[in-house]
Amino acid sequence: MKKRSLPLARVYQLLESGPVVLITTAHKGRTNIMTQSWHTMMEFEPPLVGCVISARNHSFEMLKASRECVINIPTLELAAQAVGCGNRSGQKLDKFKAFDLTPAPASMVAAPLIAECYANLECKVADTRLVNKYNFFVLEVVKAWIAPSNKNPRTLHHRGRGAFMVAGETIRLRSRMK
Amino acid sequence: MKKRSLPLARVYQLLESGPVVLITTAHKGRTNIMTQSWHTMMEFEPPLVGCVISARNHSFEMLKASRECVINIPTLELAAQAVGCGNRSGQKLDKFKAFDLTPAPASMVAAPLIAECYANLECKVADTRLVNKYNFFVLEVVKAWIAPSNKNPRTLHHRGRGAFMVAGETIRLRSRMK
Repeated sequence: MKKRSLPLARVYQLLESGPVVLITTAHKGRTNIMTQSWHTMMEFEPPLVGCVISARNHSFEMLKASRECVINIPTLELAAQAVGCGNRSGQKLDKFKAFDLTPAPASMVAAPLIAECYANLECKVADTRLVNKYNFFVLEVVKAWIAPSNKNPRTLHHRGRGAFMVAGETIRLRSRMK
Repeated sequence: MKKRSLPLARVYQLLESGPVVLITTAHKGRTNIMTQSWHTMMEFEPPLVGCVISARNHSFEMLKASRECVINIPTLELAAQAVGCGNRSGQKLDKFKAFDLTPAPASMVAAPLIAECYANLECKVADTRLVNKYNFFVLEVVKAWIAPSNKNPRTLHHRGRGAFMVAGETIRLRSRMK
């Protein structure tokens, strides 16, 4: 999937609709993938993303130690892999191999991009004040990639217990909001 | 629209898909409505919701002073009102009247429910540590209401600049995740 750089000021347009994301981390020669829906935009530019990574997850320690990650956005074709990554722990499993996903080098962080995802956001940890109490990390997106061919991505939106709403039609209204 | 109480443990199932929400506040005899997409679940139970309310918005002062609000979730039928509430400031406008929305009394907070929304979450401010830097409030949902007739709600998901993805079909996969 050919990708181009996306201006950082447009990152919010990918995340504020609330898609399921796959967060990749790297530390000491190992990588991990975590499926996640608990994230929100916090600033337009530089783009800040707030994100809960439970301390029960292997990715929590990876992110705390490396202070870097990539937020990858999958579409419907990757639904089985997204659920698979969520069902299994990365402590003893190489999820890229287990779920037939392709790691691609990022430009500004050590964590890999997932090549099959239509968008990839390279992030550095910006604020850890709410980590102890809520496992809540503030991330700064430092580089963004998108597959320009995918104009109306069929993102996944979790409704709980394995029910996923698939992105439907897009309507346009006259809005003064960004 | 007839509503029933929703167990607090199920609140995340309404929010983690990332819908546009209408946040209502009340203070000193006045109310306001704000359209918003920057929110995330932070805990299952008691349900905590992290939420950015820009200091440029009238709702910021209302929420800071009253420490209470209601998160109302609209569906496609309310798209024009949701955009209208986002385009206008509540400083001099009664948005309930201007957009023909019905305020209904909440049970545990002073802010009103929007009767036309299929779900309403009564909230109290739980943590303000990130308000100064990011306008980020941690809210605790203390009471939740839902219209049980609406099984597959056509929620709105903002893609930026007035483009809204409307919730599509729901698929089910075998997941160990909550």
